[in-house]
Amino acid sequence: MADKKKKPTRVNARLPRGFVDRDAADLRAQDAMLATIRRVYETYGFEPVETPMFEYTDALGKFLPDADRPNEGVFSLMDDDEAWMSLRYDLTAPLARYVAENYETLPKPYRSYRAGHVFRNEKPGPGRFRQFMQFDADIVGAPNVSADAEMAMMMADTMEALGIPRGQYVIRVNNRKVLDGVLEAIGLGGEENAGKRLTVLRAIDKLDKFGVEGVKLLLGEGRTDESGDRTPGAGLSENAINKVVQFVIAPLGHVLTREPLAAGSNPVALGKVEGYLNVDNQAALQRLATADITSEQFQEGLTELQQIAAFCGAAGYGDGRIRIDPSVVRGLEYYTGPVFEAELLFDVVNEKGQKVQFGSVGGGGRYDGLVSRFMSQPVPATGFSIGVSRLMTALKNLGRLETAERPGPVVVTVMDRDRMADYQAMAARLRAALNTDADGNPTAEPVPVEVFQGNPKQFGKQLQYADRRNAPVVIIQGGDEKAAGKIQVKDLIEGKKIAETIEDNAEWREARAGQELVDEADMVEAVRAILARHAAADAA
Amino acid sequence: MADKKKKPTRVNARLPRGFVDRDAADLRAQDAMLATIRRVYETYGFEPVETPMFEYTDALGKFLPDADRPNEGVFSLMDDDEAWMSLRYDLTAPLARYVAENYETLPKPYRSYRAGHVFRNEKPGPGRFRQFMQFDADIVGAPNVSADAEMAMMMADTMEALGIPRGQYVIRVNNRKVLDGVLEAIGLGGEENAGKRLTVLRAIDKLDKFGVEGVKLLLGEGRTDESGDRTPGAGLSENAINKVVQFVIAPLGHVLTREPLAAGSNPVALGKVEGYLNVDNQAALQRLATADITSEQFQEGLTELQQIAAFCGAAGYGDGRIRIDPSVVRGLEYYTGPVFEAELLFDVVNEKGQKVQFGSVGGGGRYDGLVSRFMSQPVPATGFSIGVSRLMTALKNLGRLETAERPGPVVVTVMDRDRMADYQAMAARLRAALNTDADGNPTAEPVPVEVFQGNPKQFGKQLQYADRRNAPVVIIQGGDEKAAGKIQVKDLIEGKKIAETIEDNAEWREARAGQELVDEADMVEAVRAILARHAAADAA
Repeated sequence: MADKKKKPTRVNARLPRGFVDRDAADLRAQDAMLATIRRVYETYGFEPVETPMFEYTDALGKFLPDADRPNEGVFSLMDDDEAWMSLRYDLTAPLARYVAENYETLPKPYRSYRAGHVFRNEKPGPGRFRQFMQFDADIVGAPNVSADAEMAMMMADTMEALGIPRGQYVIRVNNRKVLDGVLEAIGLGGEENAGKRLTVLRAIDKLDKFGVEGVKLLLGEGRTDESGDRTPGAGLSENAINKVVQFVIAPLGHVLTREPLAAGSNPVALGKVEGYLNVDNQAALQRLATADITSEQFQEGLTELQQIAAFCGAAGYGDGRIRIDPSVVRGLEYYTGPVFEAELLFDVVNEKGQKVQFGSVGGGGRYDGLVSRFMSQPVPATGFSIGVSRLMTALKNLGRLETAERPGPVVVTVMDRDRMADYQAMAARLRAALNTDADGNPTAEPVPVEVFQGNPKQFGKQLQYADRRNAPVVIIQGGDEKAAGKIQVKDLIEGKKIAETIEDNAEWREARAGQELVDEADMVEAVRAILARHAAADAA
Repeated sequence: MADKKKKPTRVNARLPRGFVDRDAADLRAQDAMLATIRRVYETYGFEPVETPMFEYTDALGKFLPDADRPNEGVFSLMDDDEAWMSLRYDLTAPLARYVAENYETLPKPYRSYRAGHVFRNEKPGPGRFRQFMQFDADIVGAPNVSADAEMAMMMADTMEALGIPRGQYVIRVNNRKVLDGVLEAIGLGGEENAGKRLTVLRAIDKLDKFGVEGVKLLLGEGRTDESGDRTPGAGLSENAINKVVQFVIAPLGHVLTREPLAAGSNPVALGKVEGYLNVDNQAALQRLATADITSEQFQEGLTELQQIAAFCGAAGYGDGRIRIDPSVVRGLEYYTGPVFEAELLFDVVNEKGQKVQFGSVGGGGRYDGLVSRFMSQPVPATGFSIGVSRLMTALKNLGRLETAERPGPVVVTVMDRDRMADYQAMAARLRAALNTDADGNPTAEPVPVEVFQGNPKQFGKQLQYADRRNAPVVIIQGGDEKAAGKIQVKDLIEGKKIAETIEDNAEWREARAGQELVDEADMVEAVRAILARHAAADAA
């Protein structure tokens, strides 16, 4: 016990709450999903752009520093020059800053997309992280609702491209102006009612969870759940509640059609737009049109919804995939007109064991005021955002996530540690041969090849490693093989199959399951033949 | 002037210092580059992994909070539970935490790669950002220098795959133990000389900048530059300086071969390893072997360098691409053995107008102590990191960056704003037709199609937009065409060519350059024909 030097304290290997690591299978599935989405956006003429994680806090807006260290919802810190910077909480606010900063040089309308991490300084929960990825698309400089309709159609195309069956998703479309008009009509206009409006919007947003009766309670005297917990209500009059039910949360006769209607089967002329509407949207719009709400705002919103429905119908989306639904409430404060939400309709079991609809995987809307915060001119814009990890969960549930396991590496084992240089040379030779075609160009899919780089002492551990990595082939050359100019090429997948049919150990050793002894010069061809056999078996 | 309401202050659209936006061309070039690198890593059996941007500050190590708000080099903030979190400053420290946390379930050795943003809370400068991307590969659980040799070879393969000509890059390899051994031999061992060692290492690191004579001054009495600014020296004795020059910074007879040597042209037996060394590495190693430095550490380091050179030679890299070079100093403190640096050798002009070698685009080394900070057992590891934006700059200089401009969108113009629904339907029809093959599967490259979503009032602006977006084709249908069931399909590229040969405006209008009038039913085929013509012209 001579050594009395204090050992350094061991550090605890753990992540801060609300942050997660991602493994290879997860990342590959995500990459495939993002590529599919990116392709859809590109077919609509959108281009990539990237902004950094940090922005000045004032440029992000909404969350302005009112305390010494602003910490509400965003991660913020003070820069050397005493200006507050924040990690972005979404991808829309930074885009607005980017467009304003580069307004003169960008084409207008400016169509862009970006996938990136955003940060929320909130209490994490199941499925709620403090860092997560969004994938946004936006058109800036597009003043007309035709652009909003296009965004809704592109969302539908994205769902289809991802393999979500028609009838299992819906793009719900509403308009902030309609919602505000109804609230105004029940006496909740004006600055002094801002708090009450928020309570009402939150109640409407619970429609999926509590149904119409539950929402009515939340709009009125309040609701008590099974455990006895009480949520206070908005205290609306019965008359006001009925209006909200009638024009906002009632099901509005929507029946989602599982099959697309024939294009043009239900032509309706709306204002100046010649278009096509499906019956359900027509019913929803007609009910709104009967409302005795005279506010200009409400009427404007209604006209915009009619136009969006007509545009979508004309372009072949009038089959119930895009649904006018006045109950859509989007949380972010910057929306000024149409809002939309992509919702998945299949059932899943939630953390409480209840069967619920999967629900939203993304949404967006028009934000005409966000870019002009920076500018002396109005800059209309619309866009949407997909929640990448929520969508991945959904696709996993549907069995639509690309999860095919990739073949593992060809593993060159180390029988004689003094001959490591030879084994590395064998790996280099195999790697070059299996990853280039006859013209010396890279082949389509990489074939991984590696030397075992762990401690080579126990050969069994090397085979365990190969097995753990899902290796299709291992290469073995001990002293005897070397002396004979030979190499053992072992087909691990075939080997496992044979092993299952063999009764005892002695028999197994004798069979040398899936193993063949080849001349050194024939190693590459032997490996190539095994890989081709596996590929053919996988395809069959 | 009745409206006296205070207007909201306009927000300044700008980024915090040291952060940048990235445009489409830049991102596409980066994506292509990253895909090439990823492929190389995958052929070596590496798998992707992702860790979040935040780690607990103590898990990152090195930068521990010693003040109220630790701010040295990293961005840190205090979590709700009063624990300090930091944005990662590299991708190695988080990997060490990840491996320690998941040690039992990971295959060992664990081969992984990851590209991601890292953050430095430093003063930004030209080409120095506070957020930038690294692309790392690491083998954890690999105790032998064969793994370090593999990393060096994979770096060389990466440079080749990126199209950097042989002779224009070199992977320089050193060993911390050799460097420490030399410093010990000149009396700079021990904790009490830590500061002086750092001064000496910094001086050696200036070899590229000041040459051997400049470094000698920095090792001795100090150096005065042309402007009269004086950098104090390390104050070594002449004898000590000579030792450093002889064994660390002398050019060691390296001559970079522009052509690969024939494999096996210079076989040398080294210890137990049968391998191949090129003349230059042999000379470098022999000079080190003549050193009268007896420390165990130095001898161990020398043996490891000999082995690495032999491994690389045996696998076909013994042609000067991987160079033993005792002057390599890597800044990070966690390296414990071999270190390497990928350097580009072509000249560029720096911000002072001087011609300099491009220099380092990445590096790495062995860090046997980093994972075991979290564990009760030793976990040897080696890896390297590529500086993504530096490498992009290098490839741009070499003309090897994929910068081919993509064709812009087919633009459907809006002649009659009341017929927007028709134009959107036309765009939807074109988009579907041009992006699916005969079997209904997505085609290889997306063909963007969009309706003009800006204000359609001035038709000229729509054509300007199409031009600005590099659109190959625009679609025009006004009232006359509509009445006749026709559509104008305008080839913008052909149109520009014709316009150049036409003398006056009247003639141009008459020629309707590149424009053809087709039946509505033939629109898709007309567009397809134009796109095919352009593709053929580009390929020719």
